[in-house]
Amino acid sequence: KVLKIGMIAGDGIGRQVLPAAQRVLEAVPGIPKPTFVQLDAGFEHFQKTGTALPRETVAALKSDCTAAMFGAVSSPSHKVEGYSSPIVALRKEMDLYANVRPVKSVENHDARMVDMTIVRENTECLYVKQEQIEETPQGRVARATRQISERASTRIGRMAFEIALAAAEVKKQRGGSYGWTGAPTVTVVHKSNVLSITDGLFRESVRAVAKEYPNVEVNEQIVDSLVYRLFREPEKLSTLVCPNLYGDIVSDGAAALVGSLGLVPSVNVGDSFIMGEPVHGSAPDIADRVPSIANPIASIRSAALMLEFMGYVEPAAKIYDAVDDAIRAGKVTPDLGGQMSTDEVTEEVLKKL
Amino acid sequence: KVLKIGMIAGDGIGRQVLPAAQRVLEAVPGIPKPTFVQLDAGFEHFQKTGTALPRETVAALKSDCTAAMFGAVSSPSHKVEGYSSPIVALRKEMDLYANVRPVKSVENHDARMVDMTIVRENTECLYVKQEQIEETPQGRVARATRQISERASTRIGRMAFEIALAAAEVKKQRGGSYGWTGAPTVTVVHKSNVLSITDGLFRESVRAVAKEYPNVEVNEQIVDSLVYRLFREPEKLSTLVCPNLYGDIVSDGAAALVGSLGLVPSVNVGDSFIMGEPVHGSAPDIADRVPSIANPIASIRSAALMLEFMGYVEPAAKIYDAVDDAIRAGKVTPDLGGQMSTDEVTEEVLKKL
Ligand SMILES: CC(C)[C@H](C(=O)O)[C@@H](O)C(=O)O
Ligand SMILES: CC(C)[C@H](C(=O)O)[C@@H](O)C(=O)O
Repeated sequence: KVLKIGMIAGDGIGRQVLPAAQRVLEAVPGIPKPTFVQLDAGFEHFQKTGTALPRETVAALKSDCTAAMFGAVSSPSHKVEGYSSPIVALRKEMDLYANVRPVKSVENHDARMVDMTIVRENTECLYVKQEQIEETPQGRVARATRQISERASTRIGRMAFEIALAAAEVKKQRGGSYGWTGAPTVTVVHKSNVLSITDGLFRESVRAVAKEYPNVEVNEQIVDSLVYRLFREPEKLSTLVCPNLYGDIVSDGAAALVGSLGLVPSVNVGDSFIMGEPVHGSAPDIADRVPSIANPIASIRSAALMLEFMGYVEPAAKIYDAVDDAIRAGKVTPDLGGQMSTDEVTEEVLKKL
Repeated sequence: KVLKIGMIAGDGIGRQVLPAAQRVLEAVPGIPKPTFVQLDAGFEHFQKTGTALPRETVAALKSDCTAAMFGAVSSPSHKVEGYSSPIVALRKEMDLYANVRPVKSVENHDARMVDMTIVRENTECLYVKQEQIEETPQGRVARATRQISERASTRIGRMAFEIALAAAEVKKQRGGSYGWTGAPTVTVVHKSNVLSITDGLFRESVRAVAKEYPNVEVNEQIVDSLVYRLFREPEKLSTLVCPNLYGDIVSDGAAALVGSLGLVPSVNVGDSFIMGEPVHGSAPDIADRVPSIANPIASIRSAALMLEFMGYVEPAAKIYDAVDDAIRAGKVTPDLGGQMSTDEVTEEVLKKL
């Protein structure tokens, strides 16, 4: 088996954290020796070439790679004609329909008990990017389309139930630490009290899938209350399934619970392709620091998550444990109160593999 | 001057907290003696009559009332044919275009320093409720329209700048406690990295208004990062201006910071009408308790906020102070760790007026 991984560093600290993930993937035992292809995308690439997501990048991923890692992308602070987010485009082009974001505190380290996974629909909702604007006598009026389909809601629902089952298995093995009480649970996040048709369809589609998973409990929460609960009783939340935009917002909120956006990994999952991606952005404010102080943990954990979703469960667990050890030892970057550089943290993790 | 206030208790604890607001409005010195008109609306009213927002309620507000208070409304947990949220309808019918939600911790009581105001656009965004669904060979596909207009964005922007100036004035008088550093600031919340046309128009319209307020600093934050910052450094946020749905989500998140949704007031503001409304919902889980343990503070503070926006600044301040005293004395309901009933808390506040 070959493991050829497309590396799309993108902008800002994407270029500092992706090499960390690469070093970890090169070192972790239990996987075929990986090779790496460096690929372009991002706002800076757009500024240089007029294209944010070159066709060659997509073609290389499709024809040549087993999986990929994506770093980060900068958002221009004003409207730039012709620019459109390459990560949003990539998720759609590769039909990576699920964005899976586990947010977990570190046992015997963090005071707060957080162990949840946000399963975010990754292809539709307002991200279909169908927008128009018109002049009217009262000024300009802009409209965007929010699309929710039965097909996309059903497949993201199924993914959430599978993840809830797997998470329950892991928790059972850990022996119920972290207050886990029993049945796997999926919480459907929506706003059907206002969006009765679109979010109504999302809710109904996920609930229809629930019938295939009689051992998984299903409940639901309106998105605004969910964000409230996220901060009031995060320990009661486990697997959340969300339409695209709610998932985007909720996962940043959840990241705040565990101390830093620099910790939270994600994978973009399709039926035949997996792309790891740290949840953080390009952090232009620290991107030029030498030595780099960008936190590589989200990126390293994203590489592990990518392996996990490719079936390399043991190697992934090794990486997670090494990262947790580094965190417990305080061998971390300044965003977490540590003193280490990107490279030093990475070496700490490598040592423990 | 007459003060005739429409009281729309709605569902659940709305019927327990609105009388508390009424008692406080009857007792506070410095305003014309108010009279009250009890008006119907809500899901329970819909179940009895087939109408969630009776025409008589709207007519009474328009022809007969100087202002109003709205309690809470239940959201059915499944799709109910013909039902549509009366509060959403009321905001639009009365053109109450701004929903202003101050979230403040209590000085000399709360550990965490929070003093922000969410200024939420209240008439458009996904709340225009234009939704369709169609059958396709791949299953059902639903679509909703998100509308952002220059007109609505401009007027909500103006409201935010006015509020930022007023808040800065109050803070100056308080002498910079709570870490206030100087210039009034408005943060524009958007997601224009994905929604470049709709949120682009929102951002641009608010920034155009900013030119009229050279003394107010303007910055901006993408909604997902904003929710992250809300929990990481709430003390750095002051006045936020948001499109409708982001405002809905962000204000629930902010409420979590101050300890309970039961504390956070709001007003729905139009050019010629003001309606106070606690941010919490109908809380069906506690609505039937005797004696009631519903926290009346959000409702009482909403009455004060209503008065403030009608120009009764001193009476409003009296109510705020009385409420803060009750909180500092621990004379609160169980959601805040207290032992008191709705009535007992209300009497505590009345005593201090
Ligand atoms: C950069 C942006 C387009 C992206 C998104 O909204 O999906 C980011 O916030 C994320 O969560 O991955
Ligand atoms: C009840 C619901 C329709 C309402 C909203 O979404 O505006 C509520 O969440 C609020 O914030 O007032």
